[in-house]
Amino acid sequence: MTAARSSILVALLLAVSCARPPAAPEGEGAEEPEPARQEWAIAIHGGAGVIPKDIPEEEKAQYFDALRQALSLGREALEQGAPSLEVVEKVVRFMEDAPQFNAGKGAVFTNAGTHELDAAIMDGRTRAAGAVSGLTTVKNPITLARLVMTDSRHVFLVGAGAEQFATEMGVERVDQEYFFTQKRYDAWQRALARERGEGGEGHGTVGAVALDRAGNLAAATSTGGLTNKRFGRVGDVPVIGAGTYADNATCAISATGKGEQFIRNTVAVDVAHRMAYAGQSLEEAARAVIEGVLEPGDGGVIGVDRWGTTVLVFNTPGMFRGAADASGRFAVAIWED
Amino acid sequence: MTAARSSILVALLLAVSCARPPAAPEGEGAEEPEPARQEWAIAIHGGAGVIPKDIPEEEKAQYFDALRQALSLGREALEQGAPSLEVVEKVVRFMEDAPQFNAGKGAVFTNAGTHELDAAIMDGRTRAAGAVSGLTTVKNPITLARLVMTDSRHVFLVGAGAEQFATEMGVERVDQEYFFTQKRYDAWQRALARERGEGGEGHGTVGAVALDRAGNLAAATSTGGLTNKRFGRVGDVPVIGAGTYADNATCAISATGKGEQFIRNTVAVDVAHRMAYAGQSLEEAARAVIEGVLEPGDGGVIGVDRWGTTVLVFNTPGMFRGAADASGRFAVAIWED
Repeated sequence: MTAARSSILVALLLAVSCARPPAAPEGEGAEEPEPARQEWAIAIHGGAGVIPKDIPEEEKAQYFDALRQALSLGREALEQGAPSLEVVEKVVRFMEDAPQFNAGKGAVFTNAGTHELDAAIMDGRTRAAGAVSGLTTVKNPITLARLVMTDSRHVFLVGAGAEQFATEMGVERVDQEYFFTQKRYDAWQRALARERGEGGEGHGTVGAVALDRAGNLAAATSTGGLTNKRFGRVGDVPVIGAGTYADNATCAISATGKGEQFIRNTVAVDVAHRMAYAGQSLEEAARAVIEGVLEPGDGGVIGVDRWGTTVLVFNTPGMFRGAADASGRFAVAIWED
Repeated sequence: MTAARSSILVALLLAVSCARPPAAPEGEGAEEPEPARQEWAIAIHGGAGVIPKDIPEEEKAQYFDALRQALSLGREALEQGAPSLEVVEKVVRFMEDAPQFNAGKGAVFTNAGTHELDAAIMDGRTRAAGAVSGLTTVKNPITLARLVMTDSRHVFLVGAGAEQFATEMGVERVDQEYFFTQKRYDAWQRALARERGEGGEGHGTVGAVALDRAGNLAAATSTGGLTNKRFGRVGDVPVIGAGTYADNATCAISATGKGEQFIRNTVAVDVAHRMAYAGQSLEEAARAVIEGVLEPGDGGVIGVDRWGTTVLVFNTPGMFRGAADASGRFAVAIWED
């Protein structure tokens, strides 16, 4: 993709994401206006943070390509009527396999020099959920999260127990070397060299939220966590209500940023509850949480509601992101302008 | 304690917990009536579920004694002006050491015949939180959870990483045999013998919530999890917003019951958000979630708000529980009547 083409996409994305959300109902007796519903919609992210604007053109193009490919996969599947749950898994798997993002293949290093992966998925139709943390050999954590939801009695499995479940389920395994990327190794070395020992550059995540033609919402998130994190650290991704949440009654949310802040503030479900209990629109709710509850620099969320309205809100200089819907909208972006 | 005395306490508890909560504000302009504030208040639980009414008198007396001792500890500390955060840790530590409850000493067996302990604590003043899961050698998981909050960069540590942190912090350690109790062993054997392999009898938890004289709320929860659980399974206890939540603006909540249900429905923070966004009282919010969102038999919550109103709500036949406040109220109970 050329830089010029990227700029057009960025402009498009901004134009659409700045459209006014549906008005919130006022008071109990007010009629809720039904906004024009998109038959389907999807939003994706590949992490938020300080993303240098002077990254080499080639690298920039790789990011845009990966985002467009992920979004295209989702668009095609949703157009053909695939369930949102399948779509978010598929899109997140693709982003796990892409070396650009901090999830799956591109996962960051822990302070022990290992890789520990987390993921979660949630079905807005039933509020069923599956989450995994501390995986070391599973190629696609999001798929194991979905199997925890569908094939176990539990919602949340960690560490060796989760690995054993992976063996029972027969999902694809890799050795830790699979997760080696020079970029993440260098970031870890830089983090080790710093006093504080923790990389602001290394808290990326990937995620997808979707509305399907049947009106069902789903959310999926996957991450390698924080560069140089203490081993055994769990971030917000597998914490249902913090990094991942979906409920047909309100919205599907996937978050990215400083996990600890997202856990304490139960970010994903705060957006949903503001819609459910305070009558806020998805955009009002997401902005209130990202701009009003969190601290600048903490991260962002993507969301979609049952009308197919999408939001991509962040309080960092950039967020790898994209959105598409049945109106023909299809746009990816990295920085704010 | 005699059975007659127990009955009086149960009656007392019911009388107080049925008092009307403060009316919710109506509309934006309405003046919020300030109910008489209790200088301090505390509620505790020791798990909810099917508790046979025909348990031997001696065992029943042990439960009541343990609840009264835990509650007395909390009352004394709060009367003397101790911060709620310290108080909930202290009370939960006591209940972890008591062999009656499924936490610490009395933790249930996993399907691998081991013990894996979870705990979380949250400070309503700052929304700081600490959580641990999959501990195998830490005598008092709630204390390690508090150290994660105060002495690490993280909120949530699991497994070997959490154990390593325990070593760094120098908390008291035990071997797995410490957690052996005949009662839990028998329950595990019965669970193994059953087709489904999971004990309804084994999803207890302990917890405490408190308001201190400074007006700060705190919540703490600790558990051995589910009898015969898959190793690596994380329940709702360490999931901030599911089993544990505290925010001075609304309430402090500790939950007990079928963890997976509490995670999917983000139970603890749902109560808080109904207060924050829908203007519900603590009791209205807790009842709406336990009676309206969860399924009968799922469990219960205890909660306290900034006025010192406490709730102890459950949809199971019984919940080990107690509450005390500055008005002189002091009561413990097990069943509904």
